[in-house]
Amino acid sequence: MWFVPEKEIAGLMTPEAAFDAVEAVFAAMASGDAYNFPVVREAIGYEDALYGFKGGFDRKGANLGLKAGGYWPNNQKHGLINHQSTVFLFDPDTGRVAAAVGGNLLTALRTAAASAVSIKHLAPKGAKVLGMIGAGHQSAFQMRAAARTGSFEKVIGWNPHPEMLSRLADTAADLGLPFEAVELPRLGAEADVIISITSAFEPLLMDAHVKGSTHIAAMGTDTKGKQELDPALVGRARLFTDEVAQSVSIGEFQHAAAQKKISDSDVTAIGRVITGDHEGRGDAEVTIFDGTGVGLQDLAVAGAVVELAKQQGKAIEVEI
Amino acid sequence: MWFVPEKEIAGLMTPEAAFDAVEAVFAAMASGDAYNFPVVREAIGYEDALYGFKGGFDRKGANLGLKAGGYWPNNQKHGLINHQSTVFLFDPDTGRVAAAVGGNLLTALRTAAASAVSIKHLAPKGAKVLGMIGAGHQSAFQMRAAARTGSFEKVIGWNPHPEMLSRLADTAADLGLPFEAVELPRLGAEADVIISITSAFEPLLMDAHVKGSTHIAAMGTDTKGKQELDPALVGRARLFTDEVAQSVSIGEFQHAAAQKKISDSDVTAIGRVITGDHEGRGDAEVTIFDGTGVGLQDLAVAGAVVELAKQQGKAIEVEI
Repeated sequence: MWFVPEKEIAGLMTPEAAFDAVEAVFAAMASGDAYNFPVVREAIGYEDALYGFKGGFDRKGANLGLKAGGYWPNNQKHGLINHQSTVFLFDPDTGRVAAAVGGNLLTALRTAAASAVSIKHLAPKGAKVLGMIGAGHQSAFQMRAAARTGSFEKVIGWNPHPEMLSRLADTAADLGLPFEAVELPRLGAEADVIISITSAFEPLLMDAHVKGSTHIAAMGTDTKGKQELDPALVGRARLFTDEVAQSVSIGEFQHAAAQKKISDSDVTAIGRVITGDHEGRGDAEVTIFDGTGVGLQDLAVAGAVVELAKQQGKAIEVEI
Repeated sequence: MWFVPEKEIAGLMTPEAAFDAVEAVFAAMASGDAYNFPVVREAIGYEDALYGFKGGFDRKGANLGLKAGGYWPNNQKHGLINHQSTVFLFDPDTGRVAAAVGGNLLTALRTAAASAVSIKHLAPKGAKVLGMIGAGHQSAFQMRAAARTGSFEKVIGWNPHPEMLSRLADTAADLGLPFEAVELPRLGAEADVIISITSAFEPLLMDAHVKGSTHIAAMGTDTKGKQELDPALVGRARLFTDEVAQSVSIGEFQHAAAQKKISDSDVTAIGRVITGDHEGRGDAEVTIFDGTGVGLQDLAVAGAVVELAKQQGKAIEVEI
């Protein structure tokens, strides 16, 4: 079996490779070539940790396996980040374990790739202003991946804690883009594309904020109770997601669904847009992509990084 | 993280160590210190394979993780056995992956250890005759583990394909015990302890076969539809299992439960006998242990083998 240590991922995996892997697996999900297994997610009653498994099988990409790990909120005392995960790939021909890959950076890259895929396929034509809601660790990955998709000329941003906005300013500067901190009403009115990536438990971006032709990638909500968007905004938008059942149960669309503002059939798997089975934005004013995060994304980027690591002599082989 | 390859397990793990690990984790399950996660089990629609994850957390034994793998029925063409699995252990303090361990031999050892634990705690006093139903790959492990528990003086056995009985005869000879092939009515009448380990889908051992004080370890049924015992026999016996919910849904007790011959409250977790919370056999004539197989057993034996491998310099360390 092959090993790709966490410390090697940054030197191997590019946003481009993550984008291609995630776009391909979303398409495979839509065409029935790939599916996710039921998610196991347990509060283990120890160290306040959440632990679990997200697995799946992509017949087309020949990726079988799972991401295992979780959230350990007290990890600072060990000098470690709170999210810890590892991806395990199996040989679909034999059931033997094929690879173990550090999953921490990959998780950030695959999450950013998902919103970038949605921007490529759903953003209004000629989108120039990117609005960022949230300035945590993930926001920089999100902005970098989004910047690759097109013709952004400016980034505007908001964060519940303004002192963290320097991350957005620094990342925009890295990308050669001007950055301006704004309040949410201005962000909603001016941005052509909005990425929300917070851990909020109440709506931040309100229906009245959003004006004109806009695409929103709502990437923060992955648990019951979390929320970033006004359900009225969700109710008037054209809706897309990675996995419909997950979006209306633990994703951003849970709230509009619970309030009967939308039903499952109002939500389209983004893979259908990628494969050309759905027109995508069409004449919609507002589109929203609810990125809930699925195991197949993890397997796709892990499969790609194992190939890169083998090519570059950075994979370690161990007989299991 | 540590690696223990499949080929090292035979030289490291003993039936004694497996017995101790499984007995301890059954006790931890009964005392609330350990629990199994929901099982993921998927027919992936490729190579007729069944694939999935059995995870759990034992706070007392500090074992967190899962067994991943499954059943690949066409593996002979690759020169591999059909059951392929790997156990992954995580550090409960940080969520980081701690070890990967070949799971094939461990699965046989932990399954044999479970029936042996049941024999230690539930067999009639002075049990002398061990009856074996089934002569497949697992039967030899079962007999070896059972022989350690006590005072067996003879083994009698039956198998649907009599030409395979040589495995039982050879194993008994290895253990210094006489062996006799018998029909099921004689096996049921003479054996003090019976282990059934087949892949049957209909009852083999009937109520009328079983006479006198007897303990039965039913180890073959782990899926809806499989069956080894007459539900009438289950209906008159005192019932034990590794995990109650699993025994009445996919284990041997599913049939008696479906026929309303028993209810969940008739089945006792064996851990309660180990901890002294339940009297065990008491004045029952027939006891049955339904070994359905839980992820915590896999974690327990994997945790034990990692310690042995480290002590003996046979664990490989790889930075992840």
